[in-house]
Amino acid sequence: MPSTDISDIQQFYARHMQLLDDGAAEQWARTFTDDAVFAAPSLREPVRGREAIAAGARAAAEGRAGAGEVHRHWVGMTTLGPGVRDGIEAVSYVQILAVGRQGPPRVHLSCVMRDRLVRQDGELRVAERRITRDDRP
Amino acid sequence: MPSTDISDIQQFYARHMQLLDDGAAEQWARTFTDDAVFAAPSLREPVRGREAIAAGARAAAEGRAGAGEVHRHWVGMTTLGPGVRDGIEAVSYVQILAVGRQGPPRVHLSCVMRDRLVRQDGELRVAERRITRDDRP
Amino acid sequence: MPSTDISDIQQFYARHMQLLDDGAAEQWARTFTDDAVFAAPSLREPVRGREAIAAGARAAAEGRAGAGEVHRHWVGMTTLGPGVRDGIEAVSYVQILAVGRQGPPRVHLSCVMRDRLVRQDGELRVAERRITRDDRP
Repeated sequence: MPSTDISDIQQFYARHMQLLDDGAAEQWARTFTDDAVFAAPSLREPVRGREAIAAGARAAAEGRAGAGEVHRHWVGMTTLGPGVRDGIEAVSYVQILAVGRQGPPRVHLSCVMRDRLVRQDGELRVAERRITRDDRP
Repeated sequence: MPSTDISDIQQFYARHMQLLDDGAAEQWARTFTDDAVFAAPSLREPVRGREAIAAGARAAAEGRAGAGEVHRHWVGMTTLGPGVRDGIEAVSYVQILAVGRQGPPRVHLSCVMRDRLVRQDGELRVAERRITRDDRP
Repeated sequence: MPSTDISDIQQFYARHMQLLDDGAAEQWARTFTDDAVFAAPSLREPVRGREAIAAGARAAAEGRAGAGEVHRHWVGMTTLGPGVRDGIEAVSYVQILAVGRQGPPRVHLSCVMRDRLVRQDGELRVAERRITRDDRP
């Protein structure tokens, strides 16, 4: 993917996280590949495929609604590995702000997000994601 | 505005918010159009025009000085709508850090900022801004 | 440096801060010039040169390890001054998240970072850095 630059990837992550935070689970899942793998400390084992990824996002949105909270995922400090045949490696910091109806926002989590991004039909998509939490190094 | 890209807009917001946080109210107001409209939960009704926008920024700077606080507005996760005849729609997350002389910084507010940006004399300017607070969804 | 744009500088800072937070003190020091000057409120006088800068980063990493904490330096809202013969002036906000094994992340510090960046052998490097803390204006 020689023509992908950091600006494309920043815009991808912005749209990607706005969809997640807005609870648009199906649209969010479509920013992954069909057979994407998603590994996170909150998951006993990696989730595979868009259906499972969408289901996880729906459950998270319901949990936030039940708690009366809004979450905002900020992605930043992204570094790109050398482009390889099967995609681009992107390593980013993520901070999640949680905002309730009472009291000020709080920094809910600080994570590192390691993605392999690919282009399909001209669109960037996540093929593989591994999340680590900074409070569980 | 076909030649405006995300980098231009990031740099615009960086300068725009540094001016606000530095208390440079008049310079800040000049990053809006003459007849800009600014709507925010803290305002009973939308503010219109540079004079009113500058007055609001001056009042906010005086409030911070009285409280012995520095504010830092972070804009991120910006998505751009399709360019239209009358400007670009930009939707961003905003977090405001408040820093007093005692104790650590705190996340004062988490907001979503919906702007219509235009170019005038080659410079980006805010023509319309609507702020929503995440604690008052 | 007419060909340096904001994207280059964002990528530089992302790599620079990932190295610092990962405790890669020697690699981090190599993102400064040989004779770089580093001034910060935590230092009685400015540090000069890569050796001293690396030593400071090693000491900080040991302190974090001793406290069982991870730090994440977020750089944002960067404005660039006009390119001059001896480099580019870049003014950024910095927030440092500190994450322990207990409890949520906290915003440890909010700072302003004023850098003079130069290119050497095609690589961006910090020639001069001045940090101010927002709680000590």
